[in-house]
Amino acid sequence: MQMPFQLTILGSSSAMPTSKRYPTAQVLNALGRFFLIDCGEGTQHQIRKNKIGFGRLDHIFISHLHGDHFFGLIGFISTQVMLKRTKDLHIFAHSELQRYTQFQLDFLNMEELGFRLVFHPLNFRKPQLIFDDEKLTITSFPLKHRIPCCGFLFREKEKEPNIKKEQVRKYQIPIREIKNIKAGSDFITEKGELVPNHELVIAPYKPRSYAFCSDTAYHEKIIPVIEGVDLLYHEATFTESEKHMAETTFHSTGKEAALIAQKAKAGKLLIGHFSARYKDPQLVLEEARAIFPETNAVEEDEVHSVVR
Amino acid sequence: MQMPFQLTILGSSSAMPTSKRYPTAQVLNALGRFFLIDCGEGTQHQIRKNKIGFGRLDHIFISHLHGDHFFGLIGFISTQVMLKRTKDLHIFAHSELQRYTQFQLDFLNMEELGFRLVFHPLNFRKPQLIFDDEKLTITSFPLKHRIPCCGFLFREKEKEPNIKKEQVRKYQIPIREIKNIKAGSDFITEKGELVPNHELVIAPYKPRSYAFCSDTAYHEKIIPVIEGVDLLYHEATFTESEKHMAETTFHSTGKEAALIAQKAKAGKLLIGHFSARYKDPQLVLEEARAIFPETNAVEEDEVHSVVR
Repeated sequence: MQMPFQLTILGSSSAMPTSKRYPTAQVLNALGRFFLIDCGEGTQHQIRKNKIGFGRLDHIFISHLHGDHFFGLIGFISTQVMLKRTKDLHIFAHSELQRYTQFQLDFLNMEELGFRLVFHPLNFRKPQLIFDDEKLTITSFPLKHRIPCCGFLFREKEKEPNIKKEQVRKYQIPIREIKNIKAGSDFITEKGELVPNHELVIAPYKPRSYAFCSDTAYHEKIIPVIEGVDLLYHEATFTESEKHMAETTFHSTGKEAALIAQKAKAGKLLIGHFSARYKDPQLVLEEARAIFPETNAVEEDEVHSVVR
Repeated sequence: MQMPFQLTILGSSSAMPTSKRYPTAQVLNALGRFFLIDCGEGTQHQIRKNKIGFGRLDHIFISHLHGDHFFGLIGFISTQVMLKRTKDLHIFAHSELQRYTQFQLDFLNMEELGFRLVFHPLNFRKPQLIFDDEKLTITSFPLKHRIPCCGFLFREKEKEPNIKKEQVRKYQIPIREIKNIKAGSDFITEKGELVPNHELVIAPYKPRSYAFCSDTAYHEKIIPVIEGVDLLYHEATFTESEKHMAETTFHSTGKEAALIAQKAKAGKLLIGHFSARYKDPQLVLEEARAIFPETNAVEEDEVHSVVR
């Protein structure tokens, strides 16, 4: 069974709250690793509602320091303390968030959390690898907003192919050769017969990827970074008729989000961060779909999976 | 028509969030004046959901500085800025909340709010009149918690009786006498006949009152302050079997909340601030009702009216 690569939408509104939408927050479950992306007010409530274990969230990515993207952090941390967390909690954010959070913890007399808060400052000038383990990389990259802001690219690593067991038996392939074959070698039998690599292995599925881009004006510089991404979340605060507002506030329209998806050859586009002025995002969605048909407007508690 | 005196429950959980309950927040609509009591994370979302106008909320009462009672304040203020509020916003709280809020506003570069934030420090040693206009008084009074904490008593003022118009005509009562009669005087006609006051006026309804008591251990000192209150909200974090936890954390059981209601001769009791350990507060409620039958366990978005 393929390990999950799925995104849960916890909040999809822009700065102004609505009765149905929460400010920005998402959880990506990438191969059983859970990543919290942004943490607007109400995130911990939404985490509970979506039955995501608080203890599974060890990494938090905060795109920028506008309140609707981080006001929920202190509540999240407080709850981790109440749950007697002991594992490190990693926060990737603007370096100033550490000062802000430390002030809050001091104010609340929370000197002893019982776990370490590890802050990782983001680079707002160029893309940077910020996480790398045996299965996954995460890269931050600058967006174009009123204040420093980063997007995040989550990319599964290439998997080794699986050896076909029946071929191992048939050609009596010794164990010492398995590693080479997985790395791409052909096999030469004792009789000198060459068995080409593709007959020996089952090709792995293509690694999956997800990119988060919020908040940002239309910004073509991100295209080479996210090129070929399977699932792209791009903010789409406004319709085309409010494009002047998008420009002055450094946000995007649905059409602009779709242009980025199209030019980056994304598989699917999710749009969100809708202005509270729209009762529903139908028009934003239509304007995006006219450019990039594989677009969906997200709602709270939706789950979007990338499956091969 | 009687002016409203009604309470909307925005949040009823204790510190740990649940999937159904928000941390503490309530709105009292007292005669068309809207008062926000506590402001846990998610309060602004709940305000929207309950269709309460942000612009109607000019007074906020923060019982104490545990996060589940004020983490929503900065989001509420930010939204007021986005809504271009100009009216003063009054916050009644521990004096330290001003320092905390100012740090946040400075951090967010919100020097110019467009309105004044007026902080009113609470007195945690004795009851204090903190609001007084022609229709209403509000009194803060100390509760018994791990940190300084206040309850709030909202009390409608005694209304003047209405003069019976038909009696004015019948006895040809001059206008200059109306004030005296409203104040309780009898009337003597030109013929020297005495008409007793109760024949001249319609008695007003008894003023209504609401008291908010959270968070607190069982604390009999509040009884004389809230005596005869129509509607009492008292926290009831635990059942009797967790009474030891109530004692160590300075919270109350359902039974203790009911004893306060009984001894204070309250009209009705609402209990809330339930520990997340209980899937539902049924047992807490039963233990309270055994002492004080007129008890209800609150839920989000409920409205409780006091009607005469």
